[in-house]
Amino acid sequence: MPETAQHWYFNKRPKDVIEEDTLILRSEPIPELKDGEFLLRSVYMSLDATNRVWLSDWDTYMDPLPIGARMLGFIVGEVVKSRHAGFAEGTLAVGLTTWSDYVVTTGEGFVPFPKPEGISLADAFGVLAVAGPTAYVGLLEIGKPKAGDTLVVTAAAGAVGALVGQIGKIAGCRKVVGIAGSDTKCRWLVDDLGFDAAINYNKEDILDGLRRECPDGIDVHFENVGGEALDAGLTLMNNFGRVVICGLISTYNSSEPVPGPYMFRNVIMKRLTIEGFVILDYAARFPEYHEKLVGWMRDGKLKYRLHVAEGLESAQDALRLLYTGGNNGKLMVRIGAAPN
Amino acid sequence: MPETAQHWYFNKRPKDVIEEDTLILRSEPIPELKDGEFLLRSVYMSLDATNRVWLSDWDTYMDPLPIGARMLGFIVGEVVKSRHAGFAEGTLAVGLTTWSDYVVTTGEGFVPFPKPEGISLADAFGVLAVAGPTAYVGLLEIGKPKAGDTLVVTAAAGAVGALVGQIGKIAGCRKVVGIAGSDTKCRWLVDDLGFDAAINYNKEDILDGLRRECPDGIDVHFENVGGEALDAGLTLMNNFGRVVICGLISTYNSSEPVPGPYMFRNVIMKRLTIEGFVILDYAARFPEYHEKLVGWMRDGKLKYRLHVAEGLESAQDALRLLYTGGNNGKLMVRIGAAPN
Repeated sequence: MPETAQHWYFNKRPKDVIEEDTLILRSEPIPELKDGEFLLRSVYMSLDATNRVWLSDWDTYMDPLPIGARMLGFIVGEVVKSRHAGFAEGTLAVGLTTWSDYVVTTGEGFVPFPKPEGISLADAFGVLAVAGPTAYVGLLEIGKPKAGDTLVVTAAAGAVGALVGQIGKIAGCRKVVGIAGSDTKCRWLVDDLGFDAAINYNKEDILDGLRRECPDGIDVHFENVGGEALDAGLTLMNNFGRVVICGLISTYNSSEPVPGPYMFRNVIMKRLTIEGFVILDYAARFPEYHEKLVGWMRDGKLKYRLHVAEGLESAQDALRLLYTGGNNGKLMVRIGAAPN
Repeated sequence: MPETAQHWYFNKRPKDVIEEDTLILRSEPIPELKDGEFLLRSVYMSLDATNRVWLSDWDTYMDPLPIGARMLGFIVGEVVKSRHAGFAEGTLAVGLTTWSDYVVTTGEGFVPFPKPEGISLADAFGVLAVAGPTAYVGLLEIGKPKAGDTLVVTAAAGAVGALVGQIGKIAGCRKVVGIAGSDTKCRWLVDDLGFDAAINYNKEDILDGLRRECPDGIDVHFENVGGEALDAGLTLMNNFGRVVICGLISTYNSSEPVPGPYMFRNVIMKRLTIEGFVILDYAARFPEYHEKLVGWMRDGKLKYRLHVAEGLESAQDALRLLYTGGNNGKLMVRIGAAPN
């Protein structure tokens, strides 16, 4: 058992992109456990676009992270010492906690993580911790696609987007069109994941591409990015269409508010519903989502790709990949070895 | 019976504001009635912000009005000659028709208008033809306020806004705050209509005003205008709030798309639902809305003010009042005398 732990601290509020000194890594002694606490050894950490939101000083769905606090993220780890009745030594726990290799916690924000049989911890965590429930809720409960619908997904090769497209096919969408940033990503969506078409926004105008691929208009638009893609989607929405706002990553690096979609008037003209959500609100229903997602994973209906950065020290650099499209699949950090 | 009728024709597509020669008035012989037609003598015409939308060449909820076509509007009139089984001579009919003092029609788009007992035709038409159903559907079916909610209404002294605020109080909203453009309008909202507060956007910053008047945040925001007011509302929305987009009059005079709300990110941060609607979609349910609205009118629970421009020739100038805030109450044109 080590005597010190590594923690990432919030050092300097970024004006736009995350910089070298936005977060800093520090070593600290691991304190003694008190009653009701346990020591978690971190194994995998999820990196999500919304992590950047927590570093802003906007009014968001969480209190802004104060300078000097430890950075937060979703982590799965092993309970290596416990004085907590709900978390036994040797079990796995998942939760929103600090970017640390070892952390002492009261268990607040944690739940046990019963790894499903026959699925690796990396796969289980990568799909089930954040991205899978996000895709499930966003598409099925908010987007509510009907059989025969045309679904458009932005950041389609990202962790959430890739799952959304596949769940869309499971739900009976006639046409699922993804928007991604490279031909390689686009080929992966169509050839491996079963998307009906994919548009490379670095090679063609998104609106032109959507016009070609969605001749019957768009019924459900699943937005992870914002900006040009959202405007293109709004332009082509069918009457009474639904726009799911899962992420607006194109705006998170801006200290100042940025203009909303220029085609906002189509909310009236096309009688649209635009709805945003935060997956944290749905935590109580995760077991239900996990059951569905694990079933699809086992049936080979949900494919995914993990992009695993090595070591806690790589976390800050890795997070920036989400903002350059540099990641290939679900971005996570391997902080420690997975238990047997 | 006159031999000629006056009609407003669409002459020149406006780039921004409606100009002197956007529409032109022409005199034409009244044709003979064919079987299945009737001749309507127009009495009142409703002027609505959305009329301007029909003059744009955007992709909207209706086909753009072609240059050279007669201008369209909601009119109530008297059937003065009929060869139509559904519309007897001497009865009243209401519908989306041309800006004309007399018009021959097949009845498409018309329904009989049974004037409620004890309510003048001007009042009945002013409230029931467009504004009342719009306020009813937008607030109760889309905004879905709960008892105790805080409701904000923009263009609150306008035809729809004034009704929305009062229906909000009927629905049990704890606090109804209106935004309007003069102290006189604000006083009318609070003193006569029962709004809890009103903000004069020409005298103070809307966001400052809303912060003061909505200390518990906003649960339902009813938008008729767009722009600064919408951004202020989005800034102060409570989690899971509902934003009803009834109109975006601040954008209708622009040929080019204008930026959407700068606080659009709050769709996620506050988990909002933004929903637009067009009252034409609800035509089949008007009898149901009329029954409710007439009940409230008779009980004195719905107050309103009519701004009646005199004569068909005043219609174009009158329409422009909606875009300067120059109207005082529901804007309509008296084209001919009301029948006894």
